[in-house]
Amino acid sequence: MTARPANAHQAQILRALRDEGPNSRAQLGDSLGLSRSKFAVEVDQLLETGLVVHDGLAVSRGGRRSHTVRLSPQLRFLGVDIGATSVDVAVTNAELEILEHLTQPIDVRDGPVATFEHVLDMATKLTAAGVADHFDGAGVGIPGPVRFPEGFPVAPPILPGWDGFLVREALGQDLGCPVMVDNDVNLMALGEQHAGVAKNVGDFLCVKIGTGIGCGVVVGGTVYRGLTGSAGDIGHIQVDPYGHPCACGNRGCLEAHFGGAALARDALAAVRSGGAGSAGELAERLAVSGTLTAADVGAAAAVGDPVALELIRTGGSQVGQVIAGLVSFFNPGLVVIGGRVTGLGHGLLTAIRTQVYRRSLPLATGNLPIVLAELGPRAGVIGAARLITGRVFSPA
Amino acid sequence: MTARPANAHQAQILRALRDEGPNSRAQLGDSLGLSRSKFAVEVDQLLETGLVVHDGLAVSRGGRRSHTVRLSPQLRFLGVDIGATSVDVAVTNAELEILEHLTQPIDVRDGPVATFEHVLDMATKLTAAGVADHFDGAGVGIPGPVRFPEGFPVAPPILPGWDGFLVREALGQDLGCPVMVDNDVNLMALGEQHAGVAKNVGDFLCVKIGTGIGCGVVVGGTVYRGLTGSAGDIGHIQVDPYGHPCACGNRGCLEAHFGGAALARDALAAVRSGGAGSAGELAERLAVSGTLTAADVGAAAAVGDPVALELIRTGGSQVGQVIAGLVSFFNPGLVVIGGRVTGLGHGLLTAIRTQVYRRSLPLATGNLPIVLAELGPRAGVIGAARLITGRVFSPA
Repeated sequence: MTARPANAHQAQILRALRDEGPNSRAQLGDSLGLSRSKFAVEVDQLLETGLVVHDGLAVSRGGRRSHTVRLSPQLRFLGVDIGATSVDVAVTNAELEILEHLTQPIDVRDGPVATFEHVLDMATKLTAAGVADHFDGAGVGIPGPVRFPEGFPVAPPILPGWDGFLVREALGQDLGCPVMVDNDVNLMALGEQHAGVAKNVGDFLCVKIGTGIGCGVVVGGTVYRGLTGSAGDIGHIQVDPYGHPCACGNRGCLEAHFGGAALARDALAAVRSGGAGSAGELAERLAVSGTLTAADVGAAAAVGDPVALELIRTGGSQVGQVIAGLVSFFNPGLVVIGGRVTGLGHGLLTAIRTQVYRRSLPLATGNLPIVLAELGPRAGVIGAARLITGRVFSPA
Repeated sequence: MTARPANAHQAQILRALRDEGPNSRAQLGDSLGLSRSKFAVEVDQLLETGLVVHDGLAVSRGGRRSHTVRLSPQLRFLGVDIGATSVDVAVTNAELEILEHLTQPIDVRDGPVATFEHVLDMATKLTAAGVADHFDGAGVGIPGPVRFPEGFPVAPPILPGWDGFLVREALGQDLGCPVMVDNDVNLMALGEQHAGVAKNVGDFLCVKIGTGIGCGVVVGGTVYRGLTGSAGDIGHIQVDPYGHPCACGNRGCLEAHFGGAALARDALAAVRSGGAGSAGELAERLAVSGTLTAADVGAAAAVGDPVALELIRTGGSQVGQVIAGLVSFFNPGLVVIGGRVTGLGHGLLTAIRTQVYRRSLPLATGNLPIVLAELGPRAGVIGAARLITGRVFSPA
């Protein structure tokens, strides 16, 4: 069992070292606003538990040189980010730096048992590679709504077989460490907040466009999950009352119009319709591989294929329409666009920005940056590790 | 100058007495989790300032009888709620009970100077009536976005002449007390939270449907205002890309389709079109008064006029469509529907509920009550008084 901090001040010290890295005792104490004697007592206790270690002497600030303290370099966290078609697993240290990162294709519809067999295999590979001989905690992201306090997925439309699966208990037993589970989008937001484009932003939205579409909502620096953990579930907001039927049973949901699955469907339809799409880059790609994905649309757009560009423009406008509503409602300080489909690049961002800046009121958009995520697939695993360190670095 | 609490514990005591009413010293100290000696020191200091007074002896809990303490019955707060076509002004005591309440028709488009002349006249009437000889603070609600820290309205589409008007300074000088300004919808949410249907609910949405439409967003018991104070500004969320032109310059905004102004317009059009509307209750009302308002639509619906019922059903569905999106995004514990148009009654509520329960995911709607506001026009003035007591009952 990993030691835990004894009180809130010790937890505060651990989190500061996680987020800001090694620091001199003198500077750290000052930055936390603790009295010198109080701070010394707490750090000494943390040194005894082994959670914190001394790491040489810091540069002098004029007087006696202060010891540098840091989180134990022995601490290891596992970040797991499950997507619809792939899973990312990474080992981090206590500062949430990735030491090793594996990605593997899966089909999440094979169910949780098969999926977590892959995850455990990957964790075993990571330990065999020598970057970890144990885990002090693991965070897991799942592409659907999660009942957060209990740590299991709930009735996820694209996850048959996952409803109520006790991820925390199942994986915790196998890994021998505490496990926390959250929606993949919340973890992406946490990752971008820890090490990416949202660092130091208090209120922001992180829209993840993958196979489906979701949104991480951060209020006052903390992920807002709502009453039952489903906050940010924007994939089923209606964009067109007469639109495509959706897997959820409704019509015209955002996810039915844009996202990886919708893009692949629309690209195939455009090529097969015999119109302009039947002669361009998309048609060539279909001839080669026998199918089309969102990545093909991105690649085709990059070489100027007009059908691909139009698909991105239309879909991006529909995402932008939904985001415009959220910006009016939430008045965030930043909107981050992430997920695999951001490979679509600048065309997507332009379509989104155009809608938001046109549709939302000036007071809400005056200082509103809308930017692409920075960390790519690292955001989810870093966010997952951050989630579980939030627990491990809390009083027991 | 009204005395202010000296520290956070004293502020906590004042707010508990405001929200829960008079209490015995013993019970109050227990409920706040303060040590007996600490609590005694703080209450004694508050008694010295006059903010708190003794009010007889409480019923014995077994030992020596404890004094009852309460907020000074001399404290007076002014709650001002400015709507597009009327203004409400009320005097409350420190427990935010309304002692006197005046309503007066205005046209907010006459500008802030004319509007606040009305407000000051009404305040003078209230003092002349003997319910107050001074004010310890005033809260003001304005029907548009407010830059909250600075206390002035910003570029409100329906408020020409109000942009940047220094409400706090202007009114504070005339009333001789501290003034705070907020969006009217936020104050309605605060009012319903203090004394209405949202009492003890942490995360809820309060949708106000008056001439326009707005939404108060409460997160963890506190009004969420967003980066620049415009959070909850949902009147310009798009409900129909090919819909009515809106005063904001866009097309198909919620406010352009429903709310007092849109209902009156659509009712007139329906009667004048010569169809079914030209023979019913609405037509008779038009013949009598020469115009139609949202209240006429409500009255016509109440006697079964089919055109009025259809207007409410269609408009309510469009509000419901927007609220469904907000419920998916925000996963609240309660949705409150308020504002003058709630005179439309059960038909409106049914249309909204149908959309939300159909469109939002089960995880978000499973335990979600959607209810009408309880306090009517009292919500805004109570919320306004609550806003300013939040300031007055804080350390200086």
